[in-house]
Amino acid sequence: MKETLIRKIKDIALRDPVLVEGLPGVGHVGKLVADHMVEALKADKIIEIYSPHFPPQVLVKNDGTIKQVRNEIYAYKGRDSEPDMLLLIGDYQSATNEGHYELTGIFLDIAQEFGVKRIYALGGYGTGQFVDKPTVLGAVNRHELVEEMKHYGVVFNENEPGGGIVGASGLLLGLGKLKGIDAICIIGVTSGYIVDPKEAQEVLRVLSKALRLEVGMQALEDRAKEMEKIIGKLQEMEKAQSPYEVTSDEDLRYIG
Amino acid sequence: MKETLIRKIKDIALRDPVLVEGLPGVGHVGKLVADHMVEALKADKIIEIYSPHFPPQVLVKNDGTIKQVRNEIYAYKGRDSEPDMLLLIGDYQSATNEGHYELTGIFLDIAQEFGVKRIYALGGYGTGQFVDKPTVLGAVNRHELVEEMKHYGVVFNENEPGGGIVGASGLLLGLGKLKGIDAICIIGVTSGYIVDPKEAQEVLRVLSKALRLEVGMQALEDRAKEMEKIIGKLQEMEKAQSPYEVTSDEDLRYIG
Amino acid sequence: MKETLIRKIKDIALRDPVLVEGLPGVGHVGKLVADHMVEALKADKIIEIYSPHFPPQVLVKNDGTIKQVRNEIYAYKGRDSEPDMLLLIGDYQSATNEGHYELTGIFLDIAQEFGVKRIYALGGYGTGQFVDKPTVLGAVNRHELVEEMKHYGVVFNENEPGGGIVGASGLLLGLGKLKGIDAICIIGVTSGYIVDPKEAQEVLRVLSKALRLEVGMQALEDRAKEMEKIIGKLQEMEKAQSPYEVTSDEDLRYIG
Amino acid sequence: MKETLIRKIKDIALRDPVLVEGLPGVGHVGKLVADHMVEALKADKIIEIYSPHFPPQVLVKNDGTIKQVRNEIYAYKGRDSEPDMLLLIGDYQSATNEGHYELTGIFLDIAQEFGVKRIYALGGYGTGQFVDKPTVLGAVNRHELVEEMKHYGVVFNENEPGGGIVGASGLLLGLGKLKGIDAICIIGVTSGYIVDPKEAQEVLRVLSKALRLEVGMQALEDRAKEMEKIIGKLQEMEKAQSPYEVTSDEDLRYIG
Repeated sequence: MKETLIRKIKDIALRDPVLVEGLPGVGHVGKLVADHMVEALKADKIIEIYSPHFPPQVLVKNDGTIKQVRNEIYAYKGRDSEPDMLLLIGDYQSATNEGHYELTGIFLDIAQEFGVKRIYALGGYGTGQFVDKPTVLGAVNRHELVEEMKHYGVVFNENEPGGGIVGASGLLLGLGKLKGIDAICIIGVTSGYIVDPKEAQEVLRVLSKALRLEVGMQALEDRAKEMEKIIGKLQEMEKAQSPYEVTSDEDLRYIG
Repeated sequence: MKETLIRKIKDIALRDPVLVEGLPGVGHVGKLVADHMVEALKADKIIEIYSPHFPPQVLVKNDGTIKQVRNEIYAYKGRDSEPDMLLLIGDYQSATNEGHYELTGIFLDIAQEFGVKRIYALGGYGTGQFVDKPTVLGAVNRHELVEEMKHYGVVFNENEPGGGIVGASGLLLGLGKLKGIDAICIIGVTSGYIVDPKEAQEVLRVLSKALRLEVGMQALEDRAKEMEKIIGKLQEMEKAQSPYEVTSDEDLRYIG
Repeated sequence: MKETLIRKIKDIALRDPVLVEGLPGVGHVGKLVADHMVEALKADKIIEIYSPHFPPQVLVKNDGTIKQVRNEIYAYKGRDSEPDMLLLIGDYQSATNEGHYELTGIFLDIAQEFGVKRIYALGGYGTGQFVDKPTVLGAVNRHELVEEMKHYGVVFNENEPGGGIVGASGLLLGLGKLKGIDAICIIGVTSGYIVDPKEAQEVLRVLSKALRLEVGMQALEDRAKEMEKIIGKLQEMEKAQSPYEVTSDEDLRYIG
Repeated sequence: MKETLIRKIKDIALRDPVLVEGLPGVGHVGKLVADHMVEALKADKIIEIYSPHFPPQVLVKNDGTIKQVRNEIYAYKGRDSEPDMLLLIGDYQSATNEGHYELTGIFLDIAQEFGVKRIYALGGYGTGQFVDKPTVLGAVNRHELVEEMKHYGVVFNENEPGGGIVGASGLLLGLGKLKGIDAICIIGVTSGYIVDPKEAQEVLRVLSKALRLEVGMQALEDRAKEMEKIIGKLQEMEKAQSPYEVTSDEDLRYIG
């Protein structure tokens, strides 16, 4: 397999679908949201994408069967006033720079085939500190989208996210602009140390408003509670190890 | 040489052959088994594969002649009730991610030309500790194969092997599934510190049962005894160096 | 996007234009000069170049909109006796060796289409020490150009720049020679620790003489003054931290 | 420039030429010998090879002009009983694995065009220790060549060179064998710490015998004497710095 393989699983007709991308990234914020949406909305898998730019790896599931690492596109036909959607999820992003460009080009070609006019790219922005007040930052590829996104609670700060946006989320905005597709990056501010289902809920809240779509959050809430227990234990352990130092949230090191 | 070169050495007709892959990997478990089978069964070399994805290197043999690093496929015509086999061995696996995908694609194309319906990919799983009780783990690319492999002594544990399976063994299962070829990974649990002919024997025992094939093991036994002597010496040396610490098996560091 | 994309923005006719390259590099000397020229001369953007060899990244601007990282070519129609010019600027150089060759090949093809007969490649040479006396070094791809450049204040020293010239500036000279295009590298000697607008002014002075072109320098001067304040503060901080050591300019560490 | 460029400089007819390769490597032994031969024999440059697999770099010469890094092939028409020769030299070897395969393929294609039936690949083998007794090791790609090379003073030791032969020298033997071209690697044993003109003389002595060719060695002798002075000074400096330790040759650290 020298070339990226696009494997069609199912034919489906969608009306002006919105593309939501949630590939792995900082704090897995985008992945948590998009994986959750696929499950909660019972979306249909329509495309699998295999690529030499992914790690040469299979995952082993609990029943002993394997899964070749890949990206997947799911389709959701909106009920009533809900929009139709394509959901892009996956095990990995490209392992190479060139692969990011190739794969995002493929994502955009698929989006154009389905008549996508708007993309929501979900991501996380790691601050290196545990975050008290949840914030959802934004970046857009057309100026008019800034005001619209502010209505949904997205914050636009100068110099944030610093360093720009790297990977599929960034390129969906950048290369999407070249193709005339509106694209918005919704970015959960997270520590970057752990998988962050709490911040994922914030991102989902904003996205739901933007999409005028209701998605139950129970599963994300459960994961967030679990994660809080883990963080609590880690902090206790750290205190126990360094009795003479005051251990603040900020001292936690990278754990996942 | 910009492209991978498939050099046919010999024509041979096989009946529904099984492909056994034993390229270098953790503890060289798979390589030890497959190299041993090629020798013990006097299999015929039929294909050499040269690739820019291998290191740019020749090996120098004891007589001063060289060997261009490569992968090789051997053929074995089964006697009586034995199955016909293709054996895939080599000096190296691909040095790049993309190369793993390309080369595994080539292996699968060759397998399909020969009508292969089942692949056994042999590997090692490094635990970081010297292993007392030999275990052979498994992973498969079709659910029904789990039960079958349990009959031969293969163990399926949740969360093992952690991190999935990387390289040719993994991709033979993952990409093999896309082509509808059954594939089973037989994985010897090993420390990961040393070449492990003892665990290779365990893997060969399981594989022999699965293939209904008898393969003498003397050479592997001899190597296992040699290796045990080396380990014994290393442990003595370590004790001598650190007199106040109890040196357990687990303390041995990576040596090969 | 598997291939580099050359996006024409505007058609323009130029008469024997000179190409000035100022992509990012040591001390951002070349970038500062060329960016400044584009602005001060109100040059027109005529080409955008996107490539899988750039980092997979968008920059986020202060208004929340993004910019796909790219290289750009601007055109300037000289007034009176001024020469026509192409100015090559950008956010990044190639992230891979191969990309440097491919992109420089593209730059040269574009140069040839416009009938470019001379290239000025601007760069910086990092000495690892803060520089008191500003120096502008040179390298050329045709022997006769040495004497000419000396008239404009360019210094040619044996063994400088040591290690040759790496990246687009180097290849514009090297590959340009293969195509018979005169090319001159004008190299500001800089510490390599900081963005260096002061040395950029020196390079611009030399370049202006060579091009018989006047370019106002106010913006560069302002940036230089700002930078000097920053350096001053850094030196104070360093003195405060190590009271027993005399801190000379040379002790400043990499800060940008 | 996306592809390797083969630039013919001069047409020349040769009779069964031998190819001598001396690209940069351990101790620059091969490069010293081949560069010296090109100069001493006044060979003619016939081909330049430029490649995206070389570093993206130009070298700056003492007169301020540049040289695009490249490989070069020179031709020598033997006088009297001397053989005709192609000499392959260069500034760098490929910076990538794949490039080594591509470039060696190109070298072999050129060799075949000229009817080359034998290749001498020159190299160095770094032992990590300063070498008292000069030794020239060998490796060949056809068994019969071992005895022949022993006549010229080449030593064949089991397990030497350990790790095989990497880069162009190795691949000329390995890929040359696939094309049916005899190839011999002549390997000077060197410390690996410094450029080693002394060992280069030993390699040239062996090669001259094999080629029945006389090449003056004055230039190499001069460089060897210079290098010995440098080593002497380094050893003195090291002694001065560590007065309580006996500094033997073996303690010298990597310096070039």
